[in-house]
Amino acid sequence: MRTRAAVAVAAGKPLEIMEVNLADPKEGEVLVEIKATGICHTDEFTLSGADPEGLFPAILGHEGAGVVIACGPGVTTLKPGDHVIPLYTPECRQCPSCLSQKTNLCTSIRATQGQGLMPDGTSRFSMLDGTPIHHYMGCSTFANHTVVPEIALAKVREDAPFDKICYIGCGVTTGIGAVLNTAKVEIGAKAVVFGLGGIGLNVIQGLRMAGADMIIGVDLNNDKKPWGEKFGMTHFINPKEIEGSVVQAIVEMTKTPFDQIGGADYSFDCTGNVKVMRDALECTHRGWGVSVVIGVAPAGAEIQTRPFQLVTGRVWKGTAFGGARGRTDVPKIVDWYMDGKIEIDSMITHTLKLEDINKGFDLMHAGESIRAVVVF
Amino acid sequence: MRTRAAVAVAAGKPLEIMEVNLADPKEGEVLVEIKATGICHTDEFTLSGADPEGLFPAILGHEGAGVVIACGPGVTTLKPGDHVIPLYTPECRQCPSCLSQKTNLCTSIRATQGQGLMPDGTSRFSMLDGTPIHHYMGCSTFANHTVVPEIALAKVREDAPFDKICYIGCGVTTGIGAVLNTAKVEIGAKAVVFGLGGIGLNVIQGLRMAGADMIIGVDLNNDKKPWGEKFGMTHFINPKEIEGSVVQAIVEMTKTPFDQIGGADYSFDCTGNVKVMRDALECTHRGWGVSVVIGVAPAGAEIQTRPFQLVTGRVWKGTAFGGARGRTDVPKIVDWYMDGKIEIDSMITHTLKLEDINKGFDLMHAGESIRAVVVF
Repeated sequence: MRTRAAVAVAAGKPLEIMEVNLADPKEGEVLVEIKATGICHTDEFTLSGADPEGLFPAILGHEGAGVVIACGPGVTTLKPGDHVIPLYTPECRQCPSCLSQKTNLCTSIRATQGQGLMPDGTSRFSMLDGTPIHHYMGCSTFANHTVVPEIALAKVREDAPFDKICYIGCGVTTGIGAVLNTAKVEIGAKAVVFGLGGIGLNVIQGLRMAGADMIIGVDLNNDKKPWGEKFGMTHFINPKEIEGSVVQAIVEMTKTPFDQIGGADYSFDCTGNVKVMRDALECTHRGWGVSVVIGVAPAGAEIQTRPFQLVTGRVWKGTAFGGARGRTDVPKIVDWYMDGKIEIDSMITHTLKLEDINKGFDLMHAGESIRAVVVF
Repeated sequence: MRTRAAVAVAAGKPLEIMEVNLADPKEGEVLVEIKATGICHTDEFTLSGADPEGLFPAILGHEGAGVVIACGPGVTTLKPGDHVIPLYTPECRQCPSCLSQKTNLCTSIRATQGQGLMPDGTSRFSMLDGTPIHHYMGCSTFANHTVVPEIALAKVREDAPFDKICYIGCGVTTGIGAVLNTAKVEIGAKAVVFGLGGIGLNVIQGLRMAGADMIIGVDLNNDKKPWGEKFGMTHFINPKEIEGSVVQAIVEMTKTPFDQIGGADYSFDCTGNVKVMRDALECTHRGWGVSVVIGVAPAGAEIQTRPFQLVTGRVWKGTAFGGARGRTDVPKIVDWYMDGKIEIDSMITHTLKLEDINKGFDLMHAGESIRAVVVF
């Protein structure tokens, strides 16, 4: 079949809208009609050329929602008409990682996914002249139709709006999951969120769900303050507007008459900046502080600290897709949205047509959008 | 009163054996007759001048065992004749840290302890000419008598030999505790121990207690191999004798027909070398590897890695005194020793008199001792 897609033809170039060929789903694969897709910083990271593993031409996009059109041979858990969210972290339930019960990082199709291919080592997408086009993160949601492995599709309820729940395919789950699955924040905790973009705001609402007492947001842009407050932030720091270091400021804010040591119980880096990651670790409480890296750092960048920070009880960890097992957890998060436990609508600041997808990237660069969504 | 002590008169100089003055225990303090003390790398670190917080003159030593001689006012949990192990990490059970139930790093007397003083801000030790001598880590076990706060003394059973259980005051508890309290290693785990000295061997026997399946020891000195095996090590790597990196070697060794990713479930740095700490993190398994820093790094040294290591599920943490709450846990470890659950005797390779304490440091430098103990 043919479908319409925004194709990343080369690093650093705008996406090109074009007709492409899409082959039928093979064994264990599913043809999905994408109804809506978010535009995420990770797409931008790859499109810019900064991603050393970026491949071109490719159809980017990994934050989608849509409907099953057809199933390849051997697909047993989905049928045409099912509503689905593609998962860049699949959940096969059979591999050493899934069976470890310790991680969501399913490895069953990791090798081919990293090569921009389906599990059999080929691509379903091609240019009209026959040139293969790479898949991206196993999803390629910047196309009206895509082929995705069955194990990389979460089946969700049919009354949920595609143009909102697509965001659960990455940002919402990453932010909320980092709090609930990775950090396991408890009621009454004091937490700090560095970077109040599309991930940071979801960390904040995850902290609100978890019952955190103090939710400190840190951002260089004061315009983010009302955004943070909307989702549950209780304190705001603009590092440019304080004297001294942000670490010291957080330590002071978190002291109590009883606890004169100070420090956050939990911190989350949503910036991808390795210097911020260090601050995020070092502002946590001696003895038990946990800092979670969420942001994706530039190629080659390294985090650094004195080991004394760890020896005195701080823990440095990270999260991918919020530690969520996609097929199991994503449908629950859709339920939370439908039940009003979490908010999404107001974070989707811009809705665009596929033709205008490059405008979505411009809005991101200008810091004007929280999330721009393309609706087909 | 007067007592005999090995005094660190200045950085980089041998200890000097001399008579010193020891004032009576004040409120909440206890006079202890030290019967035996181990010589630990941390004493050496301070004596050498490498410790930026080192103070002189001081009476070093923090791995002792002895008998209560007298109690100051207000002491309620100890009486003369009790057998005790001094704790450089006290356990007051009243401070924010003790009450957090998340850390063993009691902070009630941290400030004065760091200044080489008792909680009231003064020293009990002085030269015969009146010059004050600093306490060290709140213990100062290189003296035949010392004064220690009540909250920094673990009461232990009276049938346990001082010249063995003194080692529980630091090395044994640090190593075993890192496995049981900090990493919480589970039965069947695969673990790596970097550095097979006095701490590393205790990590190994902790892993054996925890039921680890694979206990890989890493050391540059092949003489350590039989030592590791004696305590439960199942595999040995000398990084100088392999092709390629130690990380790659460990990843290969831990692969199974089912799990072709490989990596250790847990790793422990017992070297204090920040490059080794990085290897220790990076050799752990994607998705769930936990690396614990135990070694003390040189002043200013920093650990470093790509944040990708954390984002893909590895956890970097540290431990001090093996995460043990001294008054609660140390008596249990003494019981384990007396019940034959753990071994200590063979690790104490040298027993010296106080006069020969500098020989103990020489043996350590030469790598000839696992532990040298001074018996009074």
